[in-house]
Amino acid sequence: MAYCFELELGVRDYECDLQGGVNNAVYLNYLEHTRHEYLKSLGLDFAGLHQRGCDLVLTRCELDYKAPLRSGDRFVVRLRLERESRLRFAFFQEIYRLPDEHLVLQAKAIGTGIVGGKPALPPELQAVLERGASPNG
Amino acid sequence: MAYCFELELGVRDYECDLQGGVNNAVYLNYLEHTRHEYLKSLGLDFAGLHQRGCDLVLTRCELDYKAPLRSGDRFVVRLRLERESRLRFAFFQEIYRLPDEHLVLQAKAIGTGIVGGKPALPPELQAVLERGASPNG
Amino acid sequence: MAYCFELELGVRDYECDLQGGVNNAVYLNYLEHTRHEYLKSLGLDFAGLHQRGCDLVLTRCELDYKAPLRSGDRFVVRLRLERESRLRFAFFQEIYRLPDEHLVLQAKAIGTGIVGGKPALPPELQAVLERGASPNG
Amino acid sequence: MAYCFELELGVRDYECDLQGGVNNAVYLNYLEHTRHEYLKSLGLDFAGLHQRGCDLVLTRCELDYKAPLRSGDRFVVRLRLERESRLRFAFFQEIYRLPDEHLVLQAKAIGTGIVGGKPALPPELQAVLERGASPNG
Repeated sequence: MAYCFELELGVRDYECDLQGGVNNAVYLNYLEHTRHEYLKSLGLDFAGLHQRGCDLVLTRCELDYKAPLRSGDRFVVRLRLERESRLRFAFFQEIYRLPDEHLVLQAKAIGTGIVGGKPALPPELQAVLERGASPNG
Repeated sequence: MAYCFELELGVRDYECDLQGGVNNAVYLNYLEHTRHEYLKSLGLDFAGLHQRGCDLVLTRCELDYKAPLRSGDRFVVRLRLERESRLRFAFFQEIYRLPDEHLVLQAKAIGTGIVGGKPALPPELQAVLERGASPNG
Repeated sequence: MAYCFELELGVRDYECDLQGGVNNAVYLNYLEHTRHEYLKSLGLDFAGLHQRGCDLVLTRCELDYKAPLRSGDRFVVRLRLERESRLRFAFFQEIYRLPDEHLVLQAKAIGTGIVGGKPALPPELQAVLERGASPNG
Repeated sequence: MAYCFELELGVRDYECDLQGGVNNAVYLNYLEHTRHEYLKSLGLDFAGLHQRGCDLVLTRCELDYKAPLRSGDRFVVRLRLERESRLRFAFFQEIYRLPDEHLVLQAKAIGTGIVGGKPALPPELQAVLERGASPNG
């Protein structure tokens, strides 16, 4: 798969649960944070959008847990953005452990926007979806 | 759908993010906690299983976000357990806001067990899957 | 100590870290949630206050960790509210494990209010501080 | 104050609550993560210690919240380690917003070790406390 953005992170010990690995819900934090950093790289600020009355929200998320991350692990979260339908966008995301690039998780996160209470995408995101996602450095 | 367990909970303010609703990852906390309470009702203790060398882990999770939960909301998490394959089980879970029973989230969480490093289900869970899930009070 | 409010809760497995006990930061979640439930019992809604431009914020917190909570534990969080200074209030809070009432944590949380960007307490809280905290059922 | 370690981090949106700033409990996550990275820089692995039967635990924490961190903020967590008593150590920690170095939080976290159920410090930490904390690059 061709990705247009990636973010390298490390496991924090408080993210691990009593089984010793990263808790299943924390991967959604990693995925969200990476999406927001990607949007920021496009000039789209999640908190700023909210203050202007536009909320980006998830409508569906599919997660395939392939291998656990553990205390001390570093990893990279990669993503690709595609249009899913007129008002929906889809993030394809994968997490790989570093440095061995072992696949940890595959996800598809579908979202939409709510502007003034109605489904709509902010113009900046429309523009990105129309031109396709561009590669990052 | 017929559910075999339910747990009533309330939103805690720290679970809400800057959009004012419960953060998307927190729903996985609600789902996990309800699964663990259900297992406990069957005499299966998640932490105790871990100490005896058996870890129950998620392999896949599908989440459909239907409506947000907000500060002050009460809700119920319902679940049904089914065998997915020889070594996999599936929890079908739904979250409803109370008291209006508005659907908030639908999820399917597929899991397996790891005993001594190998895929296997603990005998107590095998027994539950064989006789089918029983209704709770 | 005389408490004016208490809330009974149970440890959720995702709140436990790799040492097997509740992570040190999660106790602040328990303390906050109990304060907010207490305020709600007085007719003060934390989220509603925020929407009306009044934020209650912590300025200092002291925590004495006496014993760990573990998976499966139930506990009660008790609190007492006192005026600390003209614009500051103090919550004295204790957590006890159930049913043995073993002391888990003692805390003092000092806070103030910000109304329209300036330190001020909402009138409802002023009233509570003036008449002293009343006991709950 | 002279610090011996610092870690630069950024606020993640899921760490912000409905008031729009980082939730009060999340600062304890930042502080813990920085302590663990510091210990790792000394060759002391928190998870590894646990597996060898030694748990480092907090006994007291004092937090002075000076200013909120918000979505998009970057910050640095600095720390200094001192011996508090024969079996207790103290981390003095401060969080500064970047790039303006505005003080966000001051904390003192006191901890001890539990080895085989009894209070004791691991020899590596004893050695650090005896020679005093050394500056990092």
